Order: sequence, then structure tokens, then C-alpha cells
Amino acid sequence: MSNTTKKSWRTSLYKIIYEAETSAGKLFDVVLMITIIASILLVMLESVKSIDSKFHNFLNISEWVITILFTIEYIARIITVKQPAKYIFSFYGIIDLLSTIPKYISLFFGGIHALAALRALRLLRIFRILKLARYLGASNNLVNALKASRAKISVFLFAVIIVSIILGTVMYLVEGEENGFTNIPKSVYWCIVTLTTVGFGDIAPQTPLGQFIASMVMILGYGIIAVPTGIVSAEYASQGTKQKPEPPKTNLNTQSCENCLATNHKDKADYCYNCGEKLYG
Amino acid sequence: MSNTTKKSWRTSLYKIIYEAETSAGKLFDVVLMITIIASILLVMLESVKSIDSKFHNFLNISEWVITILFTIEYIARIITVKQPAKYIFSFYGIIDLLSTIPKYISLFFGGIHALAALRALRLLRIFRILKLARYLGASNNLVNALKASRAKISVFLFAVIIVSIILGTVMYLVEGEENGFTNIPKSVYWCIVTLTTVGFGDIAPQTPLGQFIASMVMILGYGIIAVPTGIVSAEYASQGTKQKPEPPKTNLNTQSCENCLATNHKDKADYCYNCGEKLYG
Amino acid sequence: MSNTTKKSWRTSLYKIIYEAETSAGKLFDVVLMITIIASILLVMLESVKSIDSKFHNFLNISEWVITILFTIEYIARIITVKQPAKYIFSFYGIIDLLSTIPKYISLFFGGIHALAALRALRLLRIFRILKLARYLGASNNLVNALKASRAKISVFLFAVIIVSIILGTVMYLVEGEENGFTNIPKSVYWCIVTLTTVGFGDIAPQTPLGQFIASMVMILGYGIIAVPTGIVSAEYASQGTKQKPEPPKTNLNTQSCENCLATNHKDKADYCYNCGEKLYG
Amino acid sequence: MSNTTKKSWRTSLYKIIYEAETSAGKLFDVVLMITIIASILLVMLESVKSIDSKFHNFLNISEWVITILFTIEYIARIITVKQPAKYIFSFYGIIDLLSTIPKYISLFFGGIHALAALRALRLLRIFRILKLARYLGASNNLVNALKASRAKISVFLFAVIIVSIILGTVMYLVEGEENGFTNIPKSVYWCIVTLTTVGFGDIAPQTPLGQFIASMVMILGYGIIAVPTGIVSAEYASQGTKQKPEPPKTNLNTQSCENCLATNHKDKADYCYNCGEKLYG
Repeated sequence: MSNTTKKSWRTSLYKIIYEAETSAGKLFDVVLMITIIASILLVMLESVKSIDSKFHNFLNISEWVITILFTIEYIARIITVKQPAKYIFSFYGIIDLLSTIPKYISLFFGGIHALAALRALRLLRIFRILKLARYLGASNNLVNALKASRAKISVFLFAVIIVSIILGTVMYLVEGEENGFTNIPKSVYWCIVTLTTVGFGDIAPQTPLGQFIASMVMILGYGIIAVPTGIVSAEYASQGTKQKPEPPKTNLNTQSCENCLATNHKDKADYCYNCGEKLYG
Repeated sequence: MSNTTKKSWRTSLYKIIYEAETSAGKLFDVVLMITIIASILLVMLESVKSIDSKFHNFLNISEWVITILFTIEYIARIITVKQPAKYIFSFYGIIDLLSTIPKYISLFFGGIHALAALRALRLLRIFRILKLARYLGASNNLVNALKASRAKISVFLFAVIIVSIILGTVMYLVEGEENGFTNIPKSVYWCIVTLTTVGFGDIAPQTPLGQFIASMVMILGYGIIAVPTGIVSAEYASQGTKQKPEPPKTNLNTQSCENCLATNHKDKADYCYNCGEKLYG
Repeated sequence: MSNTTKKSWRTSLYKIIYEAETSAGKLFDVVLMITIIASILLVMLESVKSIDSKFHNFLNISEWVITILFTIEYIARIITVKQPAKYIFSFYGIIDLLSTIPKYISLFFGGIHALAALRALRLLRIFRILKLARYLGASNNLVNALKASRAKISVFLFAVIIVSIILGTVMYLVEGEENGFTNIPKSVYWCIVTLTTVGFGDIAPQTPLGQFIASMVMILGYGIIAVPTGIVSAEYASQGTKQKPEPPKTNLNTQSCENCLATNHKDKADYCYNCGEKLYG
Repeated sequence: MSNTTKKSWRTSLYKIIYEAETSAGKLFDVVLMITIIASILLVMLESVKSIDSKFHNFLNISEWVITILFTIEYIARIITVKQPAKYIFSFYGIIDLLSTIPKYISLFFGGIHALAALRALRLLRIFRILKLARYLGASNNLVNALKASRAKISVFLFAVIIVSIILGTVMYLVEGEENGFTNIPKSVYWCIVTLTTVGFGDIAPQTPLGQFIASMVMILGYGIIAVPTGIVSAEYASQGTKQKPEPPKTNLNTQSCENCLATNHKDKADYCYNCGEKLYG
């Protein structure tokens, strides 16, 4: 009996944390998102020296609060899943852990330099923002177009890198060390900066021949930017025409299996398609 | 009788100021546009020290002339509308007021520093140029395509910001304060500068690893610029094909209701669709 | 009789200079193009001090040779046309004159400074290269697409300028003179540099708020570059579909009327469609 | 008999080196690709002074190993082809030779400066990476679209260069030598940097008029980037629609004729379509 109660308690907590079907589950997600954004802002503000020196205590306490919240969330996620290992070794499980532990480590290695090194580790928590990606996945047309054009754009970007290596080497020979092209990797870096039309200007050709080659590189870059754009445009347009006769949509529920964490269940499924576990609607 | 005369006088003034059906109304709009452009040029020239010191009196008098013209227009707009509050608290009503009062405030708080602070306020008048937007709205196809792709482009730009935060944090760790990446917000700023292919070069990576990551960022930015372009291209192309079977156009008249300022009436409407006020053709 | 001989001589010279139907006419055009490119290279090389000091005499003699060739061409063009005024006051007639006379003026005002000012005038000759445009007009599809999208792109670029003025003013208030935003026109210039993703970096925001606004400007610029691209893509694609049912091409002959210089005659026309003059096939 | 053995030995070696039908042939290609990438990394690392001074011996030995591998490959390619001249004077034959001999030349001209000059020659080996292009040619649609739009993009880029020459000359006159526009070629270089939205910032306009013209150049460049993009998008989209009714694909075998090195044979061809030589499946 007490086992049943515990199970139903664990199941309803599971539904709050892992799903967003109930209003409590939706609230949890919103609160989590705000906490993540707050934690990123804290890390950002802490890296600004003038702010850190003024509000050090406030920032420190706020971080402890957020660290404890993330710890509670981490533990809750583990105890509500039937197979905790599935969560712990999942992508988000690892990110959750990595973004929580640095603050605890700072307790044991608390020197000044150690804290600085720790701060570096803590920045990994920023990856937690990737959770926001969960809220993005609306535009399937776009995603399909990007998937369809991924291979072609990769070939294109690979060609850009090869051209940059060749032209970077030529520029190293033409301009030489005295004009900032101190070695081939740096020249290749310059060539990528130029070909992508970024143009920092920290290195710039000084010789007439170098400036002539640079002009060719820029006109090339200006011309070939049309290639990825053309690919995505055409793929996206063809996705639009393809999609019309396809009525079925992706399943809109946020149910996930309590046992194996599988998602994307059919809309009114009663059992997990992956492990056969009962799903609680 | 005198009431009727006054009303007809007010109505015809209303038609001149708020509509562009009559030749007087068109002339009013052209004169207003020229005055607005002149006022912006004045504010610009005044901010250039060498010009301000030479032509201070001329600029000051010109500004008073324009301020008085704007004041007359503001009062005329209020007295010709039946419900003045509708105008006063509309977007353009607030901009009209904000762009007119600073010069008057300068009479009362006429010290040197106050004038400088005032000049800042006066710059808000530049928003008045937004009235020009009224003259733009021709290309409905384009506007529809932009509306249709707004959500997708927002998702895309949001993803760009998240990527910038993550990569900016990485660059802060890799490059550090000694190479200009003094804190995370600044590193994120650098990452946006690079990803959007702007590339100021005020901050530029110095370490080989930093330059390697920067190269990846640039190639990423060069590749993903294809995404918004592809979206708009495809939407715009599909607008073109959609539009053909749609003959009805937007109503081309510039009539607006004297009572509630509603616009976009049917082409030969006699009464306002919003409040039932008689419309004067 | 002598009149007839003279006329036929003038007519055949006319056909060589103004048309490219005969082999002599084609040769003339090629020689002229080479001469124009040579004259531009001369002007360029002369502006490089180190080259000018070494090869001053050679450059000077070469320029005289080219100037005399252009003079002969100019006179030949005038005497072969029946209505010289038509040529003299045409766009190319004015450019031909402006690109030839500076060298003669240098004979009369031969001082050092006068020569420098003269050199400036001579650079106008570079516009002669526009004649090359005559050799471009092949891709009608593209030209039509650009014409169709001209109005929309103008509206777009106008909006870009307005946004630049507003944001430039905001940046002037935020950053101020101490950070390089010395006046509003300069801030607007900076804003255009940033919005178009050029990013010189000669002026760059220094304050956190300024860098935040700059980031927004850059992301805006990165997003809205999709607009003109989308317009041209869609127009060009629709030109392609439209064009298929249109078989008639532009007239491919280079005939021009000896009397009024009208071009674009029907392919086997015997008389000028504009003035009725006999055309010599 | 021994001739037959030799021939079959040579034929099987030919199949390994020139084709990728057998597993040995695929392995050879992968090993070659790794060797080429390693050789490029070596040249890059050697150009970095700090690395070269530490690991000079290791780099030198590694280069000799790779040089000998390339020599063996070069000789093997010559002796397995029936008409060695076909290979030697082919594009890749020349690149193979040029990328191998510099190291041998360094034995005979072994002085310090000679070595530096040699290093320059050796960089040509980087072109060997072009062999990677053999592994790219998958996306025929894209290649066709690029071929179809090549002429139009060339016309466009040519127009960009002409506009840059004209505007560059104007900027030289407006800004002059004191603001970095020291001569016309440099001003044209600046104009290309600006028009292509690269914007190094090593040269930037200082006068108000110069900044105004620069703004126009930037807006022009921001607007016309739509042209090549539009061309490629439309061509690529039309390739997609054209392709549908075309079922036949390119021949997927990697067979090449042992006698004349012709490729692209029909999938089950027994004889070379070019010289009639027997093909060994």
C-alpha cells in the first residue's frame, strides 16, 4: 500500500519534471528556464570585474541558491526515473551534472587561483541553455530543408576551407612575416576571415600584389556566398511544395517513458513503444 | 449656422491634415515630409561642433521655426479630431508631442548643461521620420512574405544568440583578458560581431586556438546566413504563386474617421465601420 | 560625284565607328576597348608615386599618345554623324570630351599645383570604361528581374537608411564623443557600416550598453540581408517561368542611324524608325 | 609467360592506384588522402617558427618520409600507365611532380637562403589537396546550377569590379593621400573591400563627404549581394524541377583506361570508349 502511494508520488513527480502535459509540469519547465537564464546572467556578471568587486557577496549567494536548485532538480530526475543510468549518461544528464558540481568543488579547493580555475569549469553550466532548444522545434519545414541541404552545404564549406588553405599559403609567400602573415596557419586564418566577408583588419595585406590577391579573394567570397543561400532557398521552396500532400504531423504530446525515457510516443499510446512500460496519461 | 460653418471649416481642415484625397491634403503631406527631413538635418548639423559654432544663430532660428510649425500642426490635429484623446495617446500623437516640447523646455532650463541634456531629448524628434513609413506600404507581397517568415527568422536569430553565448564563453576561456576578451558579455559581443560577418576588429583572437575557433565561427556564420535568406526567398516566391488567384486589393483611399481616427475604410463607404460616424467623401 | 564619294567614305567610317556589323567595325571596337583599359591603367600607375617618379616620361608620352587617339576618335565621331549635336550632347559624347581635354588644358596651366588639380579632372576619363557596359547586355532575364525588383529593393534600402538614422542617433547619445561617435552624421555612418555587415572598426562601441545595441544592429543586419536576396531570387525565378512562352528576342544587330544615332532597329530595317533616314546594311 | 605475369602485376597495381573498385584500391586512396593531409600539416607547422625550432629534426624526417612516399607513388603511376606521357602531362601529373621535387632540390642547393626559397616552392605541394576534389563530385544538381549561373555571375562580378574602379577613383579624389587613399589602385582595393562587405578598416574614410560616399558604397554592396544569390537560387530551383524527368544517373564506377586514362566509362563497359583498350572489371 505504502509502495503504491510512493509509486504514485514518484510518478506524478516524474510527470512534472519530464513531461509538460499537466499545468504543474508546464510551470516546472518555465521556472527551470528562468533559473537557467538567471544562472547564465550570474556567470556573465561575475566575469565583469567591476560588477564582481561591488556585488561579490550577492552574486556568490545567488549562485549557491541556483546551485542548490539545480542539485535538487538533478536528484529528483534520478529518483523519479526507473532506470537512473538512462538519465545520468544521457546528453542532458551529463550537462546537468557538469553545470552543478563546480560550485561544490570550490568548497574543497578554495584558494584564490583555484577559484579562478573553478570559474572556468562553472562556465560549462552555460550549456544548460541548450535545454531551450527543446522549446524551439516548431518549424519542421525549415528543419527538413536544413537536413536536406546539410550534405551540400558541408561539401561547400569544405571547399571553402581548401580554397582558404591554398590562398592562405599564397598570401604567406606574397606578404611574408613583415606584414603580419607570420606563418601559414595565420595566413589561412586571414583567408577565412576575408573569404567569409568578416574582415577583422587585425591582419591586412600591405603589398600591391597582396592587395590584388586579397581583392580576388573578397570578390570570390562575395560571389560564392550565393551557393549555400541558393541551396537552402531551393530546398526550402521544394519542402513547401512537397509538404502539401503530407497531412500527418509529429505527435504533439510531451509524454516520456518513466522506465527508459523514450519520447515521441503516439498521441494516445498506453504503453511505451520502446520497453513496454505503462504510460500514465 | 455658425456651428455648421465651423464644423465644415474643421472638417475640411481635418481632410487636409489626416487624409490625402484632396490636392490640399497631398500638399500638406509633402510640406510636412520636407519639414520633418529639414528638422532631422538641423539636429544632425547641430551635433557637428564645427558647424554649430559657425552657424549657431541660423540653426537656432531654423529650429524655432520648425518647432512652431510642429506646434501648429499638433494643435490643428487636436482641434480637428472629434475625440482628441484618440490622437493624443496614439503612437504618432506621442511622438509628435515628444519631438516638439524639448525646444520649449530649453526656455525655462536654459543653462549650458541643461541645453546639452535637452539636445538629447530633442533627438527623439527623429522618430517623426517614421511618418515616412506611411508612404512606403506599397509592396504587399513583400510585407506578407516577411510576416509569414517572421516567426521562423525569430527562431533562427534566437538560435544565433544562443550559439553566440556558448561560443563567446568558450572564447573568454581560450583567449582571456590579456587578449581583449575581458569578460563574458564582451566575448559574446565579439562572437555576434564575428558570426554576423561584421568583423570590427576592435577585439580579435591572438592565440592559435582562438583563431582556429574564430575560423569555425566565421565559416558557421557564412553558412547559416543562408537560412534567413532561404526562408524569405521561399516565402516570397510562394506569396507570388498564392497571390495570382486573389484579385481584391487593399482599399486605396486615405480616408480616416473624424471621430475615432480609424483608417482602411471601404472604397466608397459613407459611414465609419468602427464608430458609425459620417465620412465626408 | 565628289560629294557621293565623300558621303560613302563618311558612311563607311560611320559604320566602322558606330556599328559592329563589319569586321572593320569589330576591330575598331576591340582596339578602342584596349585603348580605354590602357588609359585607365596609365591613370592608376601615375597615381602611384614610386612608379610615377621612375617612369614619368614614359607615362607622359603614353598619355599623349592615348589623348591624341581619343581626340581623333572624338573628331571622327563628330564628322561622320549627320547631326553632330546629337552625339556631342549625348551621355557618351560628354564623357568622351571630358576624358580627352584635361591633357590639353595641362599645356596652358602647366604649373605643378595646376597639374595636380588637372590630374584630378583627368580621372574622369575612367568613366569611359562604362563603354564596356555595351558588351555586357546579354542576360535579359537577369536585367528584367532586377528591373522588376528595383522598386522593392529601393523601398528596402530606404528603410535601411531610416533605421540607420534612428539607431545612429541612439548610439550618439549612448556612446558620446569620447568613444568616437563625435556627431550624429558620423554615428549614422557607423550604423550603416554595421548594418550592412561591413564593419570597418575605425569606430567601435566601448560602453556595455553601446555594445548591446550594436549587437542588436548586427543581428538585425544579418537578418534583413535576406530581404533583397529573397526579392531578387523570387523575381528571377518568376522571370524564368514567364520567359518560356515568350519567343521573340531583342534585335541582335548593332545598326545605328547615321542621322540621329537611334539604335535597336528591326533586324532587316531599311529606314530609321525614328527619323526615316536610310540605313546602310 | 613472364610478360603476362608482369602485365597482370602491372594491371592489378594500376587498378589499385588509379581506380577504387577493389578494396586494395579504396585503401590506397584513403592512405594517400591521409598522407596528403599530413604533408600539408607538416608544411604549416614548419612555417611556425616556435614549432620549427623545437621539432626541426622530427619535421625534417617526416617530410623526407612523405617525399619518398610521394616519389614511389609518382613512379608507380608512370610505370602502370601504358602511355606515361598521358599521366605526366596531365594536371595532376604536373602537381604530383611539383609537390615532390622541391625536397630533392634542397639537397643540392642546401644553403640557408636557398632552403628558405625552397620552402616557398614546397608549398606548391599543398595543391595536391586538390585531389580531395575527386571525393566531392556527388551533388550534380548543384554543379549544374553553378555551371548554368557561371556566365551571369561573371558578368555581375565584372560589373562589381568596374563600379569599384570608378568609385575607388572618386574616393581617391575625395579623401586623398593624407587619409590613407595614397593612390588609385589602393582606393580601388578599398572599394572592393567595402563593396563586398569585408571591411578590414586598415583604410577608412575620414572626411564627411568620403564617409557619405562610403555609406552609399556599403548600401550598394548590401543590396547587390542579392544578385548572385538570386541567380544561384533560381538556377538551382529550376535544376530541381528539370531533373525530375531525367532518370539516368552518372556512371558510378571509378574505372579508368590503362592506356589513355579516360574515365567515366559506362557501368559495365568492356572496352574504353576513347581508345578501344580492354578494361579490366
